[in-house]
Amino acid sequence: MLASPVGNPSVNALIDLALSEDIGPGDITTDNLVARGSTGHGVVKAKEPLVISGLEIARLVFQRLDPLVCFEAYFSDGDRVRNGDRVLAVSGSMRALLTGERTALNFLQRLSGIATCVRAYVDALGDRKVRLVDTRKTAPGWRVLEKYAVRVGGAHNHRTGLYDGVLIKDNHIAAAGGLTQAVKTIRASVSHLVRIEVETADLDQVREALAANVDVIMLDNMSLARIREAVAIIDGRVLVEVSGGVNREALGQLADSGVDLISVGALTHSARSVDLSMQIAPA
Amino acid sequence: MLASPVGNPSVNALIDLALSEDIGPGDITTDNLVARGSTGHGVVKAKEPLVISGLEIARLVFQRLDPLVCFEAYFSDGDRVRNGDRVLAVSGSMRALLTGERTALNFLQRLSGIATCVRAYVDALGDRKVRLVDTRKTAPGWRVLEKYAVRVGGAHNHRTGLYDGVLIKDNHIAAAGGLTQAVKTIRASVSHLVRIEVETADLDQVREALAANVDVIMLDNMSLARIREAVAIIDGRVLVEVSGGVNREALGQLADSGVDLISVGALTHSARSVDLSMQIAPA
Amino acid sequence: MLASPVGNPSVNALIDLALSEDIGPGDITTDNLVARGSTGHGVVKAKEPLVISGLEIARLVFQRLDPLVCFEAYFSDGDRVRNGDRVLAVSGSMRALLTGERTALNFLQRLSGIATCVRAYVDALGDRKVRLVDTRKTAPGWRVLEKYAVRVGGAHNHRTGLYDGVLIKDNHIAAAGGLTQAVKTIRASVSHLVRIEVETADLDQVREALAANVDVIMLDNMSLARIREAVAIIDGRVLVEVSGGVNREALGQLADSGVDLISVGALTHSARSVDLSMQIAPA
Amino acid sequence: MLASPVGNPSVNALIDLALSEDIGPGDITTDNLVARGSTGHGVVKAKEPLVISGLEIARLVFQRLDPLVCFEAYFSDGDRVRNGDRVLAVSGSMRALLTGERTALNFLQRLSGIATCVRAYVDALGDRKVRLVDTRKTAPGWRVLEKYAVRVGGAHNHRTGLYDGVLIKDNHIAAAGGLTQAVKTIRASVSHLVRIEVETADLDQVREALAANVDVIMLDNMSLARIREAVAIIDGRVLVEVSGGVNREALGQLADSGVDLISVGALTHSARSVDLSMQIAPA
Amino acid sequence: MLASPVGNPSVNALIDLALSEDIGPGDITTDNLVARGSTGHGVVKAKEPLVISGLEIARLVFQRLDPLVCFEAYFSDGDRVRNGDRVLAVSGSMRALLTGERTALNFLQRLSGIATCVRAYVDALGDRKVRLVDTRKTAPGWRVLEKYAVRVGGAHNHRTGLYDGVLIKDNHIAAAGGLTQAVKTIRASVSHLVRIEVETADLDQVREALAANVDVIMLDNMSLARIREAVAIIDGRVLVEVSGGVNREALGQLADSGVDLISVGALTHSARSVDLSMQIAPA
Amino acid sequence: MLASPVGNPSVNALIDLALSEDIGPGDITTDNLVARGSTGHGVVKAKEPLVISGLEIARLVFQRLDPLVCFEAYFSDGDRVRNGDRVLAVSGSMRALLTGERTALNFLQRLSGIATCVRAYVDALGDRKVRLVDTRKTAPGWRVLEKYAVRVGGAHNHRTGLYDGVLIKDNHIAAAGGLTQAVKTIRASVSHLVRIEVETADLDQVREALAANVDVIMLDNMSLARIREAVAIIDGRVLVEVSGGVNREALGQLADSGVDLISVGALTHSARSVDLSMQIAPA
Repeated sequence: MLASPVGNPSVNALIDLALSEDIGPGDITTDNLVARGSTGHGVVKAKEPLVISGLEIARLVFQRLDPLVCFEAYFSDGDRVRNGDRVLAVSGSMRALLTGERTALNFLQRLSGIATCVRAYVDALGDRKVRLVDTRKTAPGWRVLEKYAVRVGGAHNHRTGLYDGVLIKDNHIAAAGGLTQAVKTIRASVSHLVRIEVETADLDQVREALAANVDVIMLDNMSLARIREAVAIIDGRVLVEVSGGVNREALGQLADSGVDLISVGALTHSARSVDLSMQIAPA
Repeated sequence: MLASPVGNPSVNALIDLALSEDIGPGDITTDNLVARGSTGHGVVKAKEPLVISGLEIARLVFQRLDPLVCFEAYFSDGDRVRNGDRVLAVSGSMRALLTGERTALNFLQRLSGIATCVRAYVDALGDRKVRLVDTRKTAPGWRVLEKYAVRVGGAHNHRTGLYDGVLIKDNHIAAAGGLTQAVKTIRASVSHLVRIEVETADLDQVREALAANVDVIMLDNMSLARIREAVAIIDGRVLVEVSGGVNREALGQLADSGVDLISVGALTHSARSVDLSMQIAPA
Repeated sequence: MLASPVGNPSVNALIDLALSEDIGPGDITTDNLVARGSTGHGVVKAKEPLVISGLEIARLVFQRLDPLVCFEAYFSDGDRVRNGDRVLAVSGSMRALLTGERTALNFLQRLSGIATCVRAYVDALGDRKVRLVDTRKTAPGWRVLEKYAVRVGGAHNHRTGLYDGVLIKDNHIAAAGGLTQAVKTIRASVSHLVRIEVETADLDQVREALAANVDVIMLDNMSLARIREAVAIIDGRVLVEVSGGVNREALGQLADSGVDLISVGALTHSARSVDLSMQIAPA
Repeated sequence: MLASPVGNPSVNALIDLALSEDIGPGDITTDNLVARGSTGHGVVKAKEPLVISGLEIARLVFQRLDPLVCFEAYFSDGDRVRNGDRVLAVSGSMRALLTGERTALNFLQRLSGIATCVRAYVDALGDRKVRLVDTRKTAPGWRVLEKYAVRVGGAHNHRTGLYDGVLIKDNHIAAAGGLTQAVKTIRASVSHLVRIEVETADLDQVREALAANVDVIMLDNMSLARIREAVAIIDGRVLVEVSGGVNREALGQLADSGVDLISVGALTHSARSVDLSMQIAPA
Repeated sequence: MLASPVGNPSVNALIDLALSEDIGPGDITTDNLVARGSTGHGVVKAKEPLVISGLEIARLVFQRLDPLVCFEAYFSDGDRVRNGDRVLAVSGSMRALLTGERTALNFLQRLSGIATCVRAYVDALGDRKVRLVDTRKTAPGWRVLEKYAVRVGGAHNHRTGLYDGVLIKDNHIAAAGGLTQAVKTIRASVSHLVRIEVETADLDQVREALAANVDVIMLDNMSLARIREAVAIIDGRVLVEVSGGVNREALGQLADSGVDLISVGALTHSARSVDLSMQIAPA
Repeated sequence: MLASPVGNPSVNALIDLALSEDIGPGDITTDNLVARGSTGHGVVKAKEPLVISGLEIARLVFQRLDPLVCFEAYFSDGDRVRNGDRVLAVSGSMRALLTGERTALNFLQRLSGIATCVRAYVDALGDRKVRLVDTRKTAPGWRVLEKYAVRVGGAHNHRTGLYDGVLIKDNHIAAAGGLTQAVKTIRASVSHLVRIEVETADLDQVREALAANVDVIMLDNMSLARIREAVAIIDGRVLVEVSGGVNREALGQLADSGVDLISVGALTHSARSVDLSMQIAPA
């Protein structure tokens, strides 16, 4: 079961912003040429193989313009769609279809682009136990949606933001007077339901983090050899995350090093939009 | 001179949304480890060659968190930056630097990614007269910013939204009872400062559009040969735009066909983020 | 077909602002005297001859208070209504009728006032070809609605705001280093779908504007004789707009001078509200 | 001392709406022609005799665009200004001056128009004791500002909205089961700091209202003779307001009938904008 | 009949804020464990004797999450409910029930807590004529709701805010140059529908207030003996309010002193939440 | 170091809502009696012993009304303050002081009331190791502020909302098909930085939760004897929280049972406001 972002206030705010920035004072082409009562039918098709994501968002876009628009999806988020497949159909107010088309596609293309990119990474991992996770390198305003598309694509989420997980970096350590003290201070401060992760740059820091009883150790930008050493030192006592400069080719080797989590910023920040188009006809 | 999006309400709304989605009820790591009065210094560096874009947005992000943060940019938007170059420096509240780092970078990496991608297309065109333009295929919520990054990269903007230019497509034509009637109706309806463009699928439509006195004719998904025929028919009487499936390799040939505008959705919808990182140290 | 402002976010924002400023923490008279379930019927009548405008806005006002209110309009926006005619009927929650009455009438009276004023100007022009256009002299917050009422009254819109048309004035010219340079710079900067208009104060400027290939020339505050000279010079090559101090009596002469557009600020900034009243009775 | 609307959230919301509807995604003329750092100086002059109102709002408009704009007013709200008088000066960012000019003038012209209209009514009353009051017939979104302009012009405010005063009309009376019962019910329900006014249509209702111990009696649309009878009956025991169809000529006679308050919707709903213009020059 | 806060924009804003602060980017427990289509049934029961208040707010909370949730209340606001009584039932989307439970209860418990506390004070007064009123000592953001709960509990409201009643305190008097001058100035400034109350600290001020023709005199923090003297001096000519340090035990004596109003801040600022719980089961 | 809620968007939204609901269209007493330029000085004093909380919020309230108000705090949040102590001083615009007084005090009294209540519980625990935590039973709209006041008082926070911690209850278990399955499903779904807590009603559930490898076990409404058994079974393998019906007297015994966390809803939902008053004098 996939937790959906539908109904989330920040998602609604983004949809409003999107429609407002595109329509402004009015769709002068459609409003002047298409009668208010005329109706139409639209079909969205895939123009390349992809993993679909964002179907419910597309529905919301059209129904924000006209609540009476009928929306039918032929797939569920996460399904693989072939080139040429019909993905969804909408029918109702021709004005709503024409005015909402671009915004709906913009959401769908970007979210499916991420899900498709994620799925390629996930497939590269095969049935290895390691957990592929995203980062906070998301398009501003899109955090909830992009994290959702990552789950749709089959990977996992790292923390959502700065509030639902602790990640201690070098500046935090310096400010707190050392790693051990930082962990102690933060453990005393945050909710017992939040875990503490520390970013480490070398094996000494790994050892100090272990001794400080952190919950997760991040190995930041280490070589494969160094990662293997770290994994040996940690020896299953806490979770281990690798981060930094991970490319899809190296994924298998990294995973086989015994780490628990691999985080990849490119899942969100460099996925290209996939190609979907919409054909509209009068009803 | 480059018109800047700073101060635009929808840009401010996006910055607020971005900070809010990342910080939520609080940056639990920083707020619990870094004292309120402590100060720091941060430097953003390029990790690859790029065209920088979004410097002022990065400044706004930090100053939204603390208006007293000092911000210095070593480049201007549109400058080429080499791998390793220092792009900007910020100093002030350590909390603001640590909490704002990711959001500022997310803006900068995406906008510079677009500007860098655009510049590559522009360079491929050399000093040809043709105007490279963007589309409405932008990330929802980012319209003003992405259109800005396109200008920063050296290309031009198509209409901003559905309200500042007329683009008549097949469904509009059908609804209006023919292309000629559509142009007549819309000319009678819209402001005299707005031009009318018609999307055409074949040479008959091109001829009908010409006869109907449109201002711009878009050749949609035509072959190079067909484009050349259309250009010959139009013969400089109105502007000609080519759209659809344009890749960077074919750009030169397309431009040499005599069209006035080439629109490329990939400028915005498929630009990857470029790599920039920020190093922070106590003051 | 008249493009409607219904659904426009800034119109919705204004309706919300209007209800909120009138109702505040509650309609203490109605809420304390009228039972929640009681229903009523209301009829709006014209108290003078007028051109009706804003019917859909009135509907939105009542339905914002109670979505179940039934609304029936006996006319369409733009219709001439005689003194005493029933304009619309509403029925449903008595509370919604009583609480919404004043706000609905305030919208209707102002928008119909503008449409009625505009129609008088349009009638004065008879079947002359000239286009009567509005200005940006609208009540702040009302831009979209007042521009709509102008269309309802039978005139045309100038640009909607500072973003969907270029109008170069003396300060822009000074800043750009001359009219010719200003036109060149702006042509290179803005979308190809936006036209460029220049405000001119004398015939030398008219000639320079012509030479600079602007799309529209505005003759600002010129005498009728000077306007005729300008029209002769321009000779149909670009559109000509007259602006400034236009009164209804001089309209015919102005129109006959051969200009294409006459802009009149008074259409919006000095139209008085027309008289409409609402009678409510228990169901 | 005149209570000012500066700082009121609904006024700020209206200023934001006004700038946003005019600027949209950007002032494409100014942003592309005027350099960001260039400065200018602007002067607003009266083009006819008027009572100035809204100076602080004009200041807010410019400073919302650039907080560093200097603003100097040569008059105070409520002052009579002669044709040609300099009303205010602004200096600072040329972009802010050019982009804000129209919005600032739109506020100033409408608010001064109301104050000027009000002053004419007030002057017509001379030093009679009667209180001239406004109504709720204000432009939606402008309630606080228009009520302020009424005070600036020298008249008084009726209730601000439906929440700070009780006005019982015929439908309330019907719903409550009679005038006496309505007054009793509402007295038991509302705060002791709110007065109760009843709208009456004939002398029987006047007598019933008196007996029911209302605080204010409104004589709705009565003839002058009937008003005199009503005043005689009421005999100073409660305040008396006349309302409906009041024109400026009849004002003196009405006032001499002995009523306490005369309410005039035209003060706000039919005041035309007065003429003010702004001249801008480079600094 | 009890005027309801349902539909008030500030109440809607508070409900949105409440759901948003609790749900944030998502209810990770429910969204990941409960299928989207599954349904349930929930019952809210009282865990102690109480006066119920806020039923409609609870309904709004659930229906904001899912408009199709069915809601049935077994009591009306203001009813006494016994320990163990079923107060309301909801059925529909299991996700909406689980996610909305805590927010709905938080509203209900606080509003019923206030109504229950108020009812105890009201009961202590028996059938004395005095009016028990609240103050502006409400939880920020809750003004309209808490004033409603006070009415539900059987007491009355003082002014809602700083805008619907005048209350002159010592600093106002000092600024205006004396009590008499303050009353004169304010009477000339505010709407005739607003009454004027003056806070007095001793009998000299009481006499001065009486002479100045205020509408209400507040006796601030006076002893019972002094209150009786004041009541004798005022002798029914204006309303008298006692304020300050009123506890429930002294209420009867205070009331018998002949004052018209007793204001008690504790009604809102110190009422504890009452205990209500919700049991949910699959449908 | 205490993480502060200053700058949090939802806190700013609440402050805006608070000022807006109190001031509405204007503070008619102050605005009409106190000149705009007049200045004053105010001091807030404790009227009873208390733990102060919310000083920065009080500062924000006044500075939202006038950014130039000077604010000096004589204590820090969390300090014990004696009856009569001066807590803070503000000086500047007399209007800002008078208009902001009540809202500032309302925040301060409620937040200090919670901190004071929490401190009493904390003191009752002495130097026992157990962690006293709050719940989500907070006043809607106040989540961030009340959780802050809990920390100020010396206790700890449970999860902030439904998004930063998993708490599995009986309905989740039923929906997921058993406790073991629920834990497995949720572990696979949520971020690795979020811990999983399960609510248990008896010892069988405790054992099942242990076997399912949850991170925290909540003992819901169990007797002290049962709690001791559970603690023995769990034997330090995971954290143990007791919840439900905890009163201050039983706190010591509960703590001595060996549990790790005790959660108490009354810390927030039933703390009364403490007494603070403000005296203002002209500067």
